[in-house]
Amino acid sequence: MLQRPPAEPGMDESEVDTPALIIDLDAMEANLDRMAAFCRENGVGLRAHAKTHKSPVIARWQIARGAVGQCVQKTAEAEALAWGGVSDILVSNEVVTPRKLARLAALAKIADVAVCVDDARIVGLVEAAAEAAGARIRVLVEIDVMGMRCGVAPGADAAALARRIAASNSLIFSGLQSYQGAAQHLRSEEERHGAIAKAVRETVATIEAIKGEGLDCAIVGGAGTGTFTHEAASGVYNELQAGSYVFMDADYARNVPSPDFRQSLFVLSTVMSSARDGLAVVDCGHKGVAVDSGLPLVDGRPDITYVGASDEHGSMTLDGRLTVGETLRLVPGHCDPTVDRYDWYVGMRGRRVECVFPVAARGMMQ
Amino acid sequence: MLQRPPAEPGMDESEVDTPALIIDLDAMEANLDRMAAFCRENGVGLRAHAKTHKSPVIARWQIARGAVGQCVQKTAEAEALAWGGVSDILVSNEVVTPRKLARLAALAKIADVAVCVDDARIVGLVEAAAEAAGARIRVLVEIDVMGMRCGVAPGADAAALARRIAASNSLIFSGLQSYQGAAQHLRSEEERHGAIAKAVRETVATIEAIKGEGLDCAIVGGAGTGTFTHEAASGVYNELQAGSYVFMDADYARNVPSPDFRQSLFVLSTVMSSARDGLAVVDCGHKGVAVDSGLPLVDGRPDITYVGASDEHGSMTLDGRLTVGETLRLVPGHCDPTVDRYDWYVGMRGRRVECVFPVAARGMMQ
Repeated sequence: MLQRPPAEPGMDESEVDTPALIIDLDAMEANLDRMAAFCRENGVGLRAHAKTHKSPVIARWQIARGAVGQCVQKTAEAEALAWGGVSDILVSNEVVTPRKLARLAALAKIADVAVCVDDARIVGLVEAAAEAAGARIRVLVEIDVMGMRCGVAPGADAAALARRIAASNSLIFSGLQSYQGAAQHLRSEEERHGAIAKAVRETVATIEAIKGEGLDCAIVGGAGTGTFTHEAASGVYNELQAGSYVFMDADYARNVPSPDFRQSLFVLSTVMSSARDGLAVVDCGHKGVAVDSGLPLVDGRPDITYVGASDEHGSMTLDGRLTVGETLRLVPGHCDPTVDRYDWYVGMRGRRVECVFPVAARGMMQ
Repeated sequence: MLQRPPAEPGMDESEVDTPALIIDLDAMEANLDRMAAFCRENGVGLRAHAKTHKSPVIARWQIARGAVGQCVQKTAEAEALAWGGVSDILVSNEVVTPRKLARLAALAKIADVAVCVDDARIVGLVEAAAEAAGARIRVLVEIDVMGMRCGVAPGADAAALARRIAASNSLIFSGLQSYQGAAQHLRSEEERHGAIAKAVRETVATIEAIKGEGLDCAIVGGAGTGTFTHEAASGVYNELQAGSYVFMDADYARNVPSPDFRQSLFVLSTVMSSARDGLAVVDCGHKGVAVDSGLPLVDGRPDITYVGASDEHGSMTLDGRLTVGETLRLVPGHCDPTVDRYDWYVGMRGRRVECVFPVAARGMMQ
C-alpha cells in the first residue's frame, strides 16, 4: 500500500497533509541551473546521483540541463529510472548476486547500463550474467580512495582488473569509479582539498597503470556535493556524481564555505501538542526525518529548537508557545535518507502546490 | 511503486533477495505466547502497539492469543489495520488536523476507534469531526508522566479535560493514556522501577481527580516492552501497550535484566565487497536498518563488528575475510523504524521461507 498523496495541485501549503516531503521548486531549479552552469564552464560531465532524489522526473530535469546521465547505488533504483525514461545509468556500486545481476543484464537491453567491480570474482559474476542474457554490460573498476568501504587498491591491482574486464566478450571496460565519500562531510575547505588531492594522485597513478595495459578510461567518475569543485579542478575526473546539491540539508550547510546552493527540501510538519509553555510537539519524528547526521532545523524559525526525535514525535523548545495545528518546515539533517521515507514529493511554488509526483525509487534497496 | 517481494515460499534463506526484513517465526510465536500468558496470569489486557509491526496479520495473531486490540500512533496506521480486519484500535496520540480527523471519524463507523487528547482545543476539533460524520468517537485523556512530549499535566487539568469530553454528545470519555516512554530504555531494572512508580502515583492521582468529577476511567493504558511488568504489578493499569516484544532489538537487549523475549527480527544482508583482509561491506546501510539507537549486531557472529553505516553500505571489521555473496543476519539497533523501511516481511521457519506478507502500514505517517 502506498501512502496517499498528501496534497493536490492548487492547494495552499496549510492544506497539505503532514508529515509531507515538500520541494521549494524555485530553489531547486536554481540549484539545477547552477550546477549545470558549473559543469559547462568547467568542461566536466554531470552524472548526478539519483540515490538522493530517487525520481526519474528530477533525473530528466537534470538531463534536460545537460547532465550525461545518472548514478544509482542499487539495481532496483536503476530499474525505477530506466522504466521512467532515463537511458544512461551507472550503478556506482558492486552488484554480486545472480538474481540481481540477471535483472541488471536484462536492463542493459533497454538502457545503457554500467556497473562497478572491485574484485576478479565479481567480474566473473557480471560476465556470466551478461552472457546468459546475451547482453553487453559496461564495467568500471572501483578503486578505494577513502578507506573502510568498497574498492580495489589503486594502481597495479586495479589495472589487473581492467585487463580482466577488457578481455571479456560480454563486458566493456569503461573506466574508473573513484569516490572519496568521507571527504564530503569534512567541515573545512582545506581538509576537503587535502582529501581530494590525495584521491586525485591515486586516481592518476591508476589511470597510468591502466594505460600500461593498453587501455583507456573513458569515464573517470566520482565527487559529491561537498567536494565537486576540487575534482573538477583536477583535470582528471570527467564525470561528477553530486546528488545532494539538488536539495541540500542541514549537514551540508554546516560545511564552510559551502557551495552556494539553496535549501529546497523540507518536511512539512504539524504542531500536535502544545500543552505547556516552552514546549511543542510536531508529528514528525525519526520515521519521517533522518537523524543519522543530526536533528532537523526549523526553517525561518531560529527561535525554535528541535531537541528530540522519537519514532513519531518531534519535541521542540522555544520561548512561548506554538498553536496546535500550525505547520512548520523542517530542514532535514540528511536529505537522501529523508527522501527515502516518503512515497510522494509535493512541489511548491511559493505557498501553492504546483505538482505532486512519486518518489519512484523509494525503498528500492535491492 | 512497491519493492518487489524479496522471496517466495519454499525458498532457502540463501535465495532471498537482500536487504530483506526476515522474521524467525518460531522465535516470534514464542514471544507472542509468552506475553499472552503474562497478561492472562496478571489479569491485564494487552493492547499491543502496531507501530512496531505495522501489520494486520501480526495484529490478528496477537488478538487470537487474547489481545483486546491494538494501538497505533497515526491515522493512516489505524486505516491500514481496520482495512485489514482489526476492529478495536486506539490512536495513542493526538490527531489535530481537520483532514485527518474526518478520516478518523469515517473509520469510527467501520471499527471501534479511540483517540487521545491533551488540550481542550483538540477536544473541540475531535468533537466537530465526529458531529460532521455522525459518528461517536471514544476519547482518552493523555497525561504527561514522562516530560518533553505530549500530555496534559496529571491531576486537576486532566480531570477538567475528562469533564469536557464527557459533556459532549459525540464523544465517549474512555479513560487515561499514561505512557512513560523514556523509562523503556533505562538500562537498570531499578531505574525503570523508579520511573514507573512515579508514573503510577501521578496516574492514581489523576484517576482520583476524575472520580471527583463523577467519571470512571474504563481504560488506563500505557507501558512498553521495557517496563510492562511494573505497570502490570501496579494494579492501576489495565491495558499494556508493549509492541517491541514481538521482535526485540539490540537496544532492548542491552536492558538488564531484560524480559525473556527472543530476537525474532533480522535484516538479511549480502557481502558485496571483500577486497581486503579484515574488512567487508554489506549491502545494508542506514536506509535499510535504523541506526537511531545504535548500529546493528551480526547474529551468531560476535567476531564481526558492524562499524559504520552509510546510506547503502554497512562496513564490518573482523579477523580474516568474508566471501562476496555470503549473507549475514543483522540484529537491528531499533526494530520499529527498521520495519518501516520495508514493504515486505519474509517469514522464515528455520532456513526455509514459509510466508511473505506486506508491512501494510509501512510509511503511514499521516
